[in-house]
Amino acid sequence: MVPAVKKDATTRLKRIAGQIGGIQRMVDEDKYCIDILTQIAAVRAALDKTGMVILKSHLQNCVADAVREGKTNEAVEELDRILTKFI
Amino acid sequence: MVPAVKKDATTRLKRIAGQIGGIQRMVDEDKYCIDILTQIAAVRAALDKTGMVILKSHLQNCVADAVREGKTNEAVEELDRILTKFI
Amino acid sequence: MVPAVKKDATTRLKRIAGQIGGIQRMVDEDKYCIDILTQIAAVRAALDKTGMVILKSHLQNCVADAVREGKTNEAVEELDRILTKFI
Amino acid sequence: MVPAVKKDATTRLKRIAGQIGGIQRMVDEDKYCIDILTQIAAVRAALDKTGMVILKSHLQNCVADAVREGKTNEAVEELDRILTKFI
Repeated sequence: MVPAVKKDATTRLKRIAGQIGGIQRMVDEDKYCIDILTQIAAVRAALDKTGMVILKSHLQNCVADAVREGKTNEAVEELDRILTKFI
Repeated sequence: MVPAVKKDATTRLKRIAGQIGGIQRMVDEDKYCIDILTQIAAVRAALDKTGMVILKSHLQNCVADAVREGKTNEAVEELDRILTKFI
Repeated sequence: MVPAVKKDATTRLKRIAGQIGGIQRMVDEDKYCIDILTQIAAVRAALDKTGMVILKSHLQNCVADAVREGKTNEAVEELDRILTKFI
Repeated sequence: MVPAVKKDATTRLKRIAGQIGGIQRMVDEDKYCIDILTQIAAVRAALDKTGMVILKSHLQNCVADAVREGKTNEAVEELDRILTKFI
């Protein structure tokens, strides 16, 4: 990961950790289920965005390198397996 | 939320907070992108499961109460809005 | 399903069938992959919306009836199983 | 798309078209909502699988070509936009 991506991912994960703490407090204080679910959906979206940032960096660097080294198939198989977990 | 659900959700959120910390360390230590993405997918699945636990409790309690009080439409509109964020 | 929901679902499914036919033609005519994927994403969203229309009707009618007949748990277990397939 | 992928995608889309027809009949014959939703979830999974087949082919061919031609960034931006529609 290039420094800018690493910093972006770190900032996003720190914010997500804070959101998880907020949800823990909501559960603890018996907040309304729908409000808790709204926050869980927000973390889910934030997590997907973080995944996309890392995936984009992976495509730009690791996958591009693999293509240049004639290892396209291996890189694509790996991508296929990880994308299946998200889609 | 009944005590058993509250305890279950709390345990799940605590585990998710630990997983997020693990991902932050992986980014910090420049681990391989695909391994980081695998962990992000795992947290996403854990979050969805936590959401389902809370949703199930909401259906069994709040929605059932709303039906008994003749407020089915309001409860369904609310469910519709939250489910759209997850599906 | 009440008549209005049945009609809405039927209209949506007819449109989706047309979109699938369009994607088949795109594949047949060797259109650009990304354009085909864009259409697949559109059908997926249309399918999810159709599912939500049917789910909403199910909540307003079958689930509400189940609550009134004291069969909340059975209805919620069933909902839990189907929602897990979508989330 | 290479011939094998084209044939695979065509077969999948034909099967999906048949499944959509089946769902239309279920709605028409007032089948139980949960059974209809189960079929919709099945089509959704089949569509995602079709998308993955096309995406994999796109990565192996178009993206690999783009990298070799020094157009990695354009290819990655395009992938990023399409993946966001699926994730």
